[in-house]
Amino acid sequence: MNNFTFQSPTEFVFGKDTENKTGELCRKYGAKKILIVYGGGSIVRSGLLQRIESSLKSVDIPFITMGGIQPNPVDKEVYKGIDFARKNDINFLLAVGGGSVIDTAKAIAAGVPYEGDFWDFYCNKAKVEKALNVGVVLTIPAAGSEGSGNTVITKLDGLHKISLRAPEHLRPTFSIMNPTLTFTLPQKQTVAGICDMMVHISERYFTNTEEVETGDRICEGLYKAIIEEAPKVIANPRDYGARANIMWAGMVAHNWTSAFGMQECWCSHFMEHEISAVYNVTHGAGLSVIFPAWLTYMAKHNVHKPYQFAIRVWDVPAISNLKEEVALEGISRLKQFWSSLGLPVNFKELGIENPDIDLLVKKLHENKGELVGSYMQLSKEETRQIYELAL
Amino acid sequence: MNNFTFQSPTEFVFGKDTENKTGELCRKYGAKKILIVYGGGSIVRSGLLQRIESSLKSVDIPFITMGGIQPNPVDKEVYKGIDFARKNDINFLLAVGGGSVIDTAKAIAAGVPYEGDFWDFYCNKAKVEKALNVGVVLTIPAAGSEGSGNTVITKLDGLHKISLRAPEHLRPTFSIMNPTLTFTLPQKQTVAGICDMMVHISERYFTNTEEVETGDRICEGLYKAIIEEAPKVIANPRDYGARANIMWAGMVAHNWTSAFGMQECWCSHFMEHEISAVYNVTHGAGLSVIFPAWLTYMAKHNVHKPYQFAIRVWDVPAISNLKEEVALEGISRLKQFWSSLGLPVNFKELGIENPDIDLLVKKLHENKGELVGSYMQLSKEETRQIYELAL
Repeated sequence: MNNFTFQSPTEFVFGKDTENKTGELCRKYGAKKILIVYGGGSIVRSGLLQRIESSLKSVDIPFITMGGIQPNPVDKEVYKGIDFARKNDINFLLAVGGGSVIDTAKAIAAGVPYEGDFWDFYCNKAKVEKALNVGVVLTIPAAGSEGSGNTVITKLDGLHKISLRAPEHLRPTFSIMNPTLTFTLPQKQTVAGICDMMVHISERYFTNTEEVETGDRICEGLYKAIIEEAPKVIANPRDYGARANIMWAGMVAHNWTSAFGMQECWCSHFMEHEISAVYNVTHGAGLSVIFPAWLTYMAKHNVHKPYQFAIRVWDVPAISNLKEEVALEGISRLKQFWSSLGLPVNFKELGIENPDIDLLVKKLHENKGELVGSYMQLSKEETRQIYELAL
Repeated sequence: MNNFTFQSPTEFVFGKDTENKTGELCRKYGAKKILIVYGGGSIVRSGLLQRIESSLKSVDIPFITMGGIQPNPVDKEVYKGIDFARKNDINFLLAVGGGSVIDTAKAIAAGVPYEGDFWDFYCNKAKVEKALNVGVVLTIPAAGSEGSGNTVITKLDGLHKISLRAPEHLRPTFSIMNPTLTFTLPQKQTVAGICDMMVHISERYFTNTEEVETGDRICEGLYKAIIEEAPKVIANPRDYGARANIMWAGMVAHNWTSAFGMQECWCSHFMEHEISAVYNVTHGAGLSVIFPAWLTYMAKHNVHKPYQFAIRVWDVPAISNLKEEVALEGISRLKQFWSSLGLPVNFKELGIENPDIDLLVKKLHENKGELVGSYMQLSKEETRQIYELAL
């Protein structure tokens, strides 16, 4: 186990009707004037925005709104938000939505007090030294952004989709998590989220760091819970218990509770970011295509963890002299599970018949360097083979 | 799942040599003058105290020390500490030790700024509204006090051992966790700690709250990790990986990561507190006696969770029409495991041939009311039967 630090200062307020506490929580964390960031009009149609506005009015905190954030959020909206916030003396960001909305709000929060171009943070030209406070009302579980200090933004010029990690400044001050808000999510978004959280777990679990049994067991517990609860959500989108378990698993999967002292990988995420940046597909659906391909390659080249994954998570019988076969059976069960939820498990099912693999490989290594990942450090030739395994 | 809030603001700094960061962390969290609280002389003999003092000197923060805190810490030391802290203008408590030391430091931290008797907090006459900051250098894992907002103190007059929960004010600001500091722990203390953390998990896991699969799976993962790592620690007390996994499991077991949205029970802890208050035995050793007895009673009267525990944690084959038998087989494997670590599993092995069960029952219900616990609410007659099961 490696040395590490862990801190999860975000106040998670979980359960029914918790959005009515928005005003009280904004006040607690120093909001004077709020910019509410959101996505499409669903929070308007459902009445959620109105309930949040009522809650803010009840504590006399003024606010303005900025809607229209799209999936795979882009720099253009961040620039707009920074400008808008500065002109209106905003001191607090309230993100109402899923990962795209939260990530945009975090980027705005870091950008407002910074004199340079906010993109400097994403391309490692500058470090976040301060940021406005961000509060969250989560409507789409899985991104994990509600508990993490991370944000992912795509630069439209060149379609560079880059993640930034600044936990000291970009963890939300509070996150309101009401599972009933997820009842009306389209199935496609629900399952993309489920896939995303499973891969968030995997980016930690597939590590070469030894002696991390406690972390491994927490990861395996989270996988098991998701595998059990996901079909219930599909069968009945209004199953509160199943929605609640999935929502909380998505947070724990990404706030480093399960990942202490392990070298993380993030290779599948990096490979997927290129797919969604170029083809504008849902992040979770891109992951369900690329992760099994990556894992298949690992079963051949670094079988230790894929073997454990097959045995402990998918109950494949252990056969120590046939590790690759056991691992592949685990991957087959994973793909079967994702297919049963309606997720694509190859490019064709994702609607991309002939992906431009040259372009994906080129952009991946431009953004991430000659070698990508840590569970295995992959060259261009190797990432090409993995993209091809996903055909 | 019930509504809940979760927040873990403590900065955990985990790994080798991390005690050298004590000075830097004290400065970060506003220490001007520090009272170092510790237990026996082992931290003096091992040189740990000296390393911590050097670290504080390197950042020019003055400190005074107060040693001699005993297991099952008592109010007398708290009064002494409050007095000492006030006279010396202390604004920061640094606890170097295990649960008893940390719990004493927390009680002092709450008592210093309070005009009344600090015991008011423990007997529900007053609420903690402010407290000095507390930092921790953990030397005995398991109490969980390094991550929780809880403290347990015994009032010498009447031997009332009472716990207080005030997470808003009593969570440590930082906790330094260096597994190598636990290499020299006597085996008796090591295994008592292992038992304590397993029962901390259990006080959450054994709940009637439904639809808590994610929490259940995290709990089961923690049990599994501890069951795997504990024998390694016994075989080789200097096994860094095993010590590290145990140390982190002990924290996660008690910072509510695994317990969100569940009604907790704490019955075994309450029953044990009477044993250790009266007979001054190690808390963990008292738990290894009373918890299996409690669980045996539950197998008969509320079998649902003991059955799941047997199947998922102890790999007992499921037989749905013989739930009690399956549950009892799980309990038998638990006792066998604890015995293999050298823990007592009945009063006799604890060295108490004829416990005064009348007195234990009387004090338990005096302190906790007519009915005790929540997985089952137990009357005097029932807690008596459980104490008798532990003979």
